[in-house]
Amino acid sequence: MPVNLPAIDPDSLYAVPGVRLGYAEAGIKKPGRKDVLLLELAPGSRVAGVFTQNRFCAAPVQICREVLASGAEVRALVVNTGNANAGTGDEGLERARKVCSSVAEVLSIKPEQVLPFSTGVILEPLPHSKISAALPTAAARLAPSLWADAAETIMTTDIAPKASSELLEIDGQRISVTGIAKGSGMIHPNMATMLGYVATNAAIAQPLLQQLVKEVADLSFNCVTVDGDTSTNDSFILISTGQTQLPEITSADSAAYKKIKQAILDVSIYLAQAMARDGEGATKFMTIDVIGGKSVAECKQIAFAIAHSPLVKTAFFASDPNLGRILAAIGYAGVSDLDTRTLKLYLGDTLVAVNGGRNPEYQEEDGQRVMKEAEITIRVELNRGDADATVWTCDFSYDYVKINADYRS
Amino acid sequence: MPVNLPAIDPDSLYAVPGVRLGYAEAGIKKPGRKDVLLLELAPGSRVAGVFTQNRFCAAPVQICREVLASGAEVRALVVNTGNANAGTGDEGLERARKVCSSVAEVLSIKPEQVLPFSTGVILEPLPHSKISAALPTAAARLAPSLWADAAETIMTTDIAPKASSELLEIDGQRISVTGIAKGSGMIHPNMATMLGYVATNAAIAQPLLQQLVKEVADLSFNCVTVDGDTSTNDSFILISTGQTQLPEITSADSAAYKKIKQAILDVSIYLAQAMARDGEGATKFMTIDVIGGKSVAECKQIAFAIAHSPLVKTAFFASDPNLGRILAAIGYAGVSDLDTRTLKLYLGDTLVAVNGGRNPEYQEEDGQRVMKEAEITIRVELNRGDADATVWTCDFSYDYVKINADYRS
Repeated sequence: MPVNLPAIDPDSLYAVPGVRLGYAEAGIKKPGRKDVLLLELAPGSRVAGVFTQNRFCAAPVQICREVLASGAEVRALVVNTGNANAGTGDEGLERARKVCSSVAEVLSIKPEQVLPFSTGVILEPLPHSKISAALPTAAARLAPSLWADAAETIMTTDIAPKASSELLEIDGQRISVTGIAKGSGMIHPNMATMLGYVATNAAIAQPLLQQLVKEVADLSFNCVTVDGDTSTNDSFILISTGQTQLPEITSADSAAYKKIKQAILDVSIYLAQAMARDGEGATKFMTIDVIGGKSVAECKQIAFAIAHSPLVKTAFFASDPNLGRILAAIGYAGVSDLDTRTLKLYLGDTLVAVNGGRNPEYQEEDGQRVMKEAEITIRVELNRGDADATVWTCDFSYDYVKINADYRS
Repeated sequence: MPVNLPAIDPDSLYAVPGVRLGYAEAGIKKPGRKDVLLLELAPGSRVAGVFTQNRFCAAPVQICREVLASGAEVRALVVNTGNANAGTGDEGLERARKVCSSVAEVLSIKPEQVLPFSTGVILEPLPHSKISAALPTAAARLAPSLWADAAETIMTTDIAPKASSELLEIDGQRISVTGIAKGSGMIHPNMATMLGYVATNAAIAQPLLQQLVKEVADLSFNCVTVDGDTSTNDSFILISTGQTQLPEITSADSAAYKKIKQAILDVSIYLAQAMARDGEGATKFMTIDVIGGKSVAECKQIAFAIAHSPLVKTAFFASDPNLGRILAAIGYAGVSDLDTRTLKLYLGDTLVAVNGGRNPEYQEEDGQRVMKEAEITIRVELNRGDADATVWTCDFSYDYVKINADYRS
């Protein structure tokens, strides 16, 4: 079960003027399951995205990059689960384009105005005809209120749907920020992660939106890892529909921008943490704070080394304070001039290691007490600079193996 | 159970003139278990080693580095299991030195002539008095024939002891090469791996021996991974006792050297592969060949990305040809200019992927047939250069989680 991830209350997800959502059951992997999502955007919407750095990036990722680079006005997004359309060569590109054409036909827009997304098994041909056949149903359902259904539609091995929403009032205008994401395994973003979509009706100028999507990804989706595997399909999309009387925001210094940016960041961090809380087989949610480094990069390097270590993750699953494994991970993280004598390791509020060894006052019971919690913070103080980084992850359980050994069956 | 790792026949392990071995049951972790190994070397022996790159390297590793750098004549090695003496600060160094002093006393040599090694749990104080108390027993047992007992003594989570031996005749002289190793988890060498000791009676000049230990490590222990965790205690030691009439070897070009080097390499590769065959929870042994790269480094990078992927490893455990996961790992390995359209992926003899997608003639049954084997080769042809690399690993099973969740209990 996901760790402290409350069920979505559909009423808590604010509609975003300019965004309508619809879904369908195309039978891609199993019949009767929501597996195709359509997002329709009002004319004038702006869209920015960041994508996987995987060299085997999926066909839909390639098309998204093309469309966004062309400067075309994006009017629709289409997402399918059950098939990643990755490792599918030229045929995969053709099939993704056919899906875009079908969307264009159903919504009376151009194929070049459609962003396609796929998630699921790699190396198998996309059943594009099933998706096209389901699109009229999705289009018929289009409504601004279906964010919860949308979050459910894009799930794969996720146990729980992931959505978050905030409502602001700025200069008398209601600005909503609502986002959904999916992701549970093959999660180690290297730019953005899995599928994440956050929309606002605030009007944010295109260059600022493009800058914002990167900043937000670096502080949210790029700070979470489940298994260290970077997917072929990771995409994070930020949508600004401009459906508000609030003037267009063109400067990062405006007060309105700062408020909206914070709301977008809050929603994105919630979604990123939700992925670790719902990590495949997760029984614990871990926050790894590395502080006092020379650079954010080295802090992240150490935090990810801890977060990726199967030995650390299995010890947390067992609630066993076998904390030497954390020291080992810090040691092999690749920070070559690290002085192990000046660093401190805390588990929750307990000082575990100091002066290159165990804190003389550390008691096994103190470690044991913290390890039994469902939410645990590991803090590493490097004492060599002013930079910090935080990474979120989960433990490694029998169920991770079970889920991934059985995934296709 | 280890994958195709035959039991050791003690008679197949040739004694190495100049090396005597003894063991004792010091009760470090459990009573009645062999846990202290003593190796006594004849005067005039040369020793070279490579050690972990982990910044939290263990106290004994620090002392080994000191002793080898000092140029002292090494006369003994002492190994304990059950405690790594890592993350133990200055107190750990003192305790390791006390063990060296006890060895010196028992063997009537100097403490600076002793190399200490420890393996086991990190961050707990070394019970040095237990080790010292057990040394007279180990010394009383010293004999040239105890390689099989020695291999058993150094095991931790290993299921099977690991040893290999070759006998050469060069210019009428018998030259033996015999080695032992331990390692099953926390295995991703970054210079050498876990504990490995290979000895020969051939006389190899010190500078050549030092060069040889690095070359051999790079082609054997540095090519194996179980879980991507680099231990705090990894050590690989090469011993040349010189107990032969064959003249000292000073040049890498001599015919005798080439034969002996090959034998040392064979023994070391056998031991390195044995670690993956006996990887924690292993049910499959995988060889990953990456060929046609621009550099050995990029070939290793891709091979290790595949070998470390929990998704690839769980798919192999399930005998599920979910081969897109291999493409994903190739794609995120970090070779930024990799052209996915020119590479080929083979599973055993089956061509799986070509032109950036699935081989049109690939049949799921072919993949399934190969996946059912206990020994599987993955071959990636990059078609961009002449460099190759090979990495050995194992799959990822329920038992890996079980072993590592329960390790200290």
